[in-house]
Amino acid sequence: MANAILDQLIAGMRAGGPDFSDPPLEVRATFAALLDTMPEPDGVVFTETTLGGVPALECRADGTSDDGVLLYLHGGGYVAGSARGYRGLPAALGRAAGIRAIALDYRLAPEAPFPAPVDDVLAAYDALIDQGVPAARILLAGDSAGGGLTMATLIALRDAGKPAPGGALLLSPWVDLTGQSASWQSKADADPSLTPAGLAAAAGHYLQGQDARAPLASPLFADLSDLPPLMIQVGSSEILLDDATGLAARAGAAGTSVRLEVWPQMIHVWQAFSFMLPEGQQAIDAAGQFFRDRLAGAQ
Amino acid sequence: MANAILDQLIAGMRAGGPDFSDPPLEVRATFAALLDTMPEPDGVVFTETTLGGVPALECRADGTSDDGVLLYLHGGGYVAGSARGYRGLPAALGRAAGIRAIALDYRLAPEAPFPAPVDDVLAAYDALIDQGVPAARILLAGDSAGGGLTMATLIALRDAGKPAPGGALLLSPWVDLTGQSASWQSKADADPSLTPAGLAAAAGHYLQGQDARAPLASPLFADLSDLPPLMIQVGSSEILLDDATGLAARAGAAGTSVRLEVWPQMIHVWQAFSFMLPEGQQAIDAAGQFFRDRLAGAQ
Repeated sequence: MANAILDQLIAGMRAGGPDFSDPPLEVRATFAALLDTMPEPDGVVFTETTLGGVPALECRADGTSDDGVLLYLHGGGYVAGSARGYRGLPAALGRAAGIRAIALDYRLAPEAPFPAPVDDVLAAYDALIDQGVPAARILLAGDSAGGGLTMATLIALRDAGKPAPGGALLLSPWVDLTGQSASWQSKADADPSLTPAGLAAAAGHYLQGQDARAPLASPLFADLSDLPPLMIQVGSSEILLDDATGLAARAGAAGTSVRLEVWPQMIHVWQAFSFMLPEGQQAIDAAGQFFRDRLAGAQ
Repeated sequence: MANAILDQLIAGMRAGGPDFSDPPLEVRATFAALLDTMPEPDGVVFTETTLGGVPALECRADGTSDDGVLLYLHGGGYVAGSARGYRGLPAALGRAAGIRAIALDYRLAPEAPFPAPVDDVLAAYDALIDQGVPAARILLAGDSAGGGLTMATLIALRDAGKPAPGGALLLSPWVDLTGQSASWQSKADADPSLTPAGLAAAAGHYLQGQDARAPLASPLFADLSDLPPLMIQVGSSEILLDDATGLAARAGAAGTSVRLEVWPQMIHVWQAFSFMLPEGQQAIDAAGQFFRDRLAGAQ
């Protein structure tokens, strides 16, 4: 099926996307430059804040309420990306869910290796609870490395005996840092955004010699029972495809409620391009319905 | 999570469900007796008919239209089950989709082994097309063996160059007849409905020595590209769990639009018990939304 907008996006990614094999500071600059090309979202008030001592960006889209909070964890291979750079995506998801979003600037590797980002998210989550937000009205979401971080957070909260959030959205999540996933090879030619070498380099900066199979580093291998409902979206043109389908299979087998959507032809975190790509907005709308259903169930 | 209704259902299945290891005529009788315990659906007109020479039961729920047709393929391991015995499920799905349903009495094994049922469904589909129903307004659905048959039909239609239906719903589909699926063992204790020995016996009656890996017998191993959008629902307490998650992974990787839902604790084709089990009606409602979206897209 012809898709001219998608073809244009793919050409742009191939020409100027970040190469995660580059030194981290270089990746950060290239990634920030890519994010800077995105248009300013309309009708959203952005406010710098902190949450549990972690810098964050609150995103309030027109018409959203305080009935819940969407805590958003950006991607960037644990070495790049920022709440401000990503602001369009949490703002759009918050709008679709009808609530404010808070995008977290968790610490990055190599300066802050695993598990520092997990600790940052847990501190932010605790702060929301301390502010009086009911756990069931906190929704988590993350893309790519932020999706892995979202899963790690759910697992750490469960293991600590803390109340679970109402649900979690994983966009093209990176949950297997071992490099053993078959789609790293089978989808390498189709994926215009990520390469096996780039992901391996990012994993190296994040782990710094720690075990890639640690449950909070590669949640694919964790005990996935007793987690809140998960919604997973992934494109068919991604080397991270197997991370998503494997996560759905393993979480489902462990008795966790799972909804997986595989979108034909879509590329890594295509929802970030919703300002130009209709399938991006459609996926955000589907995620918004998931969030609204979760909030309705929390009443 | 306690679920008294589910526990009651599970106890009933363990006490009196069909054992597919029994001789086929015996399975048919036990299965028919189980289906006969289900209440008569309210507000549905059932009409015996034929479609392409195949006996069928039309199910018109109150308030449904002729904007599309849901062609339903019942389960029963290819050896048992009937359109009339199953009538509550296609009626409920048709009601949720807003259209009439036609449940097909395809031929059963061992009298009619593979691929006779596939031929019957193709004849019925051709008849709907000949009646002037646009292909995109035909929706396919099936449970268990009927889910495998649904997938086989989609593949056969594609390979014959015929127009695809608008989408397909697979409820706990049986798409791997080889007996190699890991959940045949890992979920054997949790599953109150099916046993590996029973499925192996049913596969034997259906295949009668033919290759279990034939694409139309075990669609899991078929080329799954260029198929219409799929929605798959499966429970976490099923030996057929891996059939569903594997189908989602392989169809998604082939570029087909896939939505998979794994429902915690649910048992094989729990939607058939929607008259007593809330999760059954919730799953049917979700399927109905999928059908409505597909019909809206066909306009």
